Amino acid sequence: MRSKRSAARLSEPDAAGNGLIDRRIFLGTGAAAAAAIGSIVSPHAAMGADPLPVAPWMRVPGSPFVGYGQPSRFEDKVVRISANPPNAPGTGAARTPLHRLDGMITPNGLHFERSHSGIPDIDPDAHRLVIHGLVKRPLVFTLDALARYPIESRIAFIECGGNSRLLYQQDPAPVNVQALHGLLSCAEWTGVRLSTVLDEAGVEPAAKWLVAEGADAAGMSRSVPLVKAMEDALIALYQNGERVRPSNGYPMRLLLPGYEGNMQVKWLRRIKVTEGPTMTKDETSKYTMLLPDEKSLQFVFPIEAKSQITQPSPGLTMQGPGLYEISGLAWSGYGTITRVEVSADGGKSWATAALQHPVLPKALTRFRMAWRWNGGPSILQSRATDDTGYVQPTRAELITRRGINAYYHFNGVTSWAVGESGEVKHVYA
Amino acid sequence: MRSKRSAARLSEPDAAGNGLIDRRIFLGTGAAAAAAIGSIVSPHAAMGADPLPVAPWMRVPGSPFVGYGQPSRFEDKVVRISANPPNAPGTGAARTPLHRLDGMITPNGLHFERSHSGIPDIDPDAHRLVIHGLVKRPLVFTLDALARYPIESRIAFIECGGNSRLLYQQDPAPVNVQALHGLLSCAEWTGVRLSTVLDEAGVEPAAKWLVAEGADAAGMSRSVPLVKAMEDALIALYQNGERVRPSNGYPMRLLLPGYEGNMQVKWLRRIKVTEGPTMTKDETSKYTMLLPDEKSLQFVFPIEAKSQITQPSPGLTMQGPGLYEISGLAWSGYGTITRVEVSADGGKSWATAALQHPVLPKALTRFRMAWRWNGGPSILQSRATDDTGYVQPTRAELITRRGINAYYHFNGVTSWAVGESGEVKHVYA
Repeated sequence: MRSKRSAARLSEPDAAGNGLIDRRIFLGTGAAAAAAIGSIVSPHAAMGADPLPVAPWMRVPGSPFVGYGQPSRFEDKVVRISANPPNAPGTGAARTPLHRLDGMITPNGLHFERSHSGIPDIDPDAHRLVIHGLVKRPLVFTLDALARYPIESRIAFIECGGNSRLLYQQDPAPVNVQALHGLLSCAEWTGVRLSTVLDEAGVEPAAKWLVAEGADAAGMSRSVPLVKAMEDALIALYQNGERVRPSNGYPMRLLLPGYEGNMQVKWLRRIKVTEGPTMTKDETSKYTMLLPDEKSLQFVFPIEAKSQITQPSPGLTMQGPGLYEISGLAWSGYGTITRVEVSADGGKSWATAALQHPVLPKALTRFRMAWRWNGGPSILQSRATDDTGYVQPTRAELITRRGINAYYHFNGVTSWAVGESGEVKHVYA
Repeated sequence: MRSKRSAARLSEPDAAGNGLIDRRIFLGTGAAAAAAIGSIVSPHAAMGADPLPVAPWMRVPGSPFVGYGQPSRFEDKVVRISANPPNAPGTGAARTPLHRLDGMITPNGLHFERSHSGIPDIDPDAHRLVIHGLVKRPLVFTLDALARYPIESRIAFIECGGNSRLLYQQDPAPVNVQALHGLLSCAEWTGVRLSTVLDEAGVEPAAKWLVAEGADAAGMSRSVPLVKAMEDALIALYQNGERVRPSNGYPMRLLLPGYEGNMQVKWLRRIKVTEGPTMTKDETSKYTMLLPDEKSLQFVFPIEAKSQITQPSPGLTMQGPGLYEISGLAWSGYGTITRVEVSADGGKSWATAALQHPVLPKALTRFRMAWRWNGGPSILQSRATDDTGYVQPTRAELITRRGINAYYHFNGVTSWAVGESGEVKHVYA
């Protein structure tokens, strides 16, 4: 059953410096990978494997069925971490444990949250969505009425505009990928096209924008260009198959694929069609970038191409020299990821990673790269390219353009230093 | 903003009898859909919408962040239903509420389960996977050792071989889609290729099969052809991004894309490579079809192309004449769904449904069809075609070939009768 190609593959030179191995190792049968890894990972020889010892959990009947299942009790540390001001336990953000996950989908219980006044407890039968402003026929929808319209699904990432902001700091924050980059998740969202209900209401010719308002205590509101609303926006009713979670906007949220998360208004209760942007508190006091010349850059909506390595990353200590998989996530609010490159020598040389299919526009893309770590100090980096040709910049390039007070939309390269002990640390390189 | 094409689309004749509308309604902007639906669904006009009334949940701060989130309390009826023998609460099956879900992904809490002696409470650090039998080097893996190998993801459906077996009965069971067809789910599974660890162990030339054994109290075991193991089998460690749920095999399960669910052994603890099938209790007393000539058909592994309508379906009563979306799921263990047709007149005429992208091999595919219900009695059906050219048979065709005692792999067309009251019932037609 062995692939005859395996030997040829492994005799190829490394794909880039410091042990990066050609991505074709991931594309064939397992033979190439096994040959490369076998003697290094060292599973134990199973002498006397037959009969096998009977594990204690095989000696008793297992637990019964439940209506709605939960993760194993042994996974109770795989949770979101949250930060909030004193006396405002629902204001702030909760971050996805990206270092503990694999694949492209974020399970609903671990999708990141950003809330401005906690999670409202909305009765779906009493909730209403109003469409008004510059429309011929103002309309109010119950959830049931809305759900009668044609439905569509999209697998899409959502990233908070403030994700990764710690990398604007002068010194590298000594924290892990969850704390740095955990305001990022991806789900299959299903709902009604916003264009369908706007067409139903009849948009006036003068209209160019809308303002979307949430039914939380903050009345969180953002202005959205009408062209985006008509292009690919959804009123999402389902998240990974089931009704949208309360923390993600139950019973309905706006989905603006590729746009900064804050605009994808949760607990959506109102769409007001307008001539211009409304200049709400949530887009003037926040979500605006302060540039080096002290001007502000407002209304930068799509998330620029970006990537990060999730394994290995701080907190996941390397277990001695040998072969490892470097794995991470790449995404772009402008389209589809076409290439992810990985460096193990701090950017001196780069190798192209394997992309996990399906590679979808405005969705997370998982990349994988094989690495033979020689046990020496190394700097791991990744950089993404999207189908507009845009290449993720280094941190230095981004800081040169934006300064250190921009706060939002940090998409420079992240660097992980691997020490001789196997410890992984966040550094600037 | 209105599409000029909308009028043209809507003036086209129906796509098939009894009100089925051309699927192009789903492919453009929302304009066509809105024009078709608007006057029928009737959201209320929102006079005096500004200022909006303030809902009670906007008057108090919302609830705080939690580490691992849950669905809304208003969704507590969206649960799996289970059936089990007296005194054996963990033996039997729990079914996915397909009529309450939308999209292609099944959330982890609602993935179907089939267990033969309950869900074992496995300590992942103490769990071992043994590879032995006809191999050069028997091996034993800890979870950590296994996780060092190259990782891969696949979005795949799993369907129990016994799903839909009630349709072999002489009379139509008066139950809903969850009770009839709910042993079906779809997730993104991530793990190590089985071929990688088999190559590592070194398969002997005489080997043609393997037997996979679970670490539950039933020691559930099935024989698998080696060719499938080497083709696309995974040892899955993650389910929709997080560790596989206990009910789905924590900490590792076999994934055999497209094969009947029972073979995709949960709580995987052993792979023994063999010359022939092992004839375990789980593949002789069960999962074998009894044919009309009283011979048995054993080792029918891939799930044949199949589809079912999830909305409308029994329990979801139609709210008066008007436009509805008919929506459902199609899948094939042999490959990719290429076409789903829908009939509203009991199979006299058929129209081609829109398929939700991405359409992936051996994954669930969501189909959608617009239907203008005139309020009269109707019979809804769907039939799937896959890329081998196979067309899902009618129930009568399947029964002619298989008889009524085959029990497993029922993939005939399901019929829903819509009455004048709007009630939907399971019928044979």
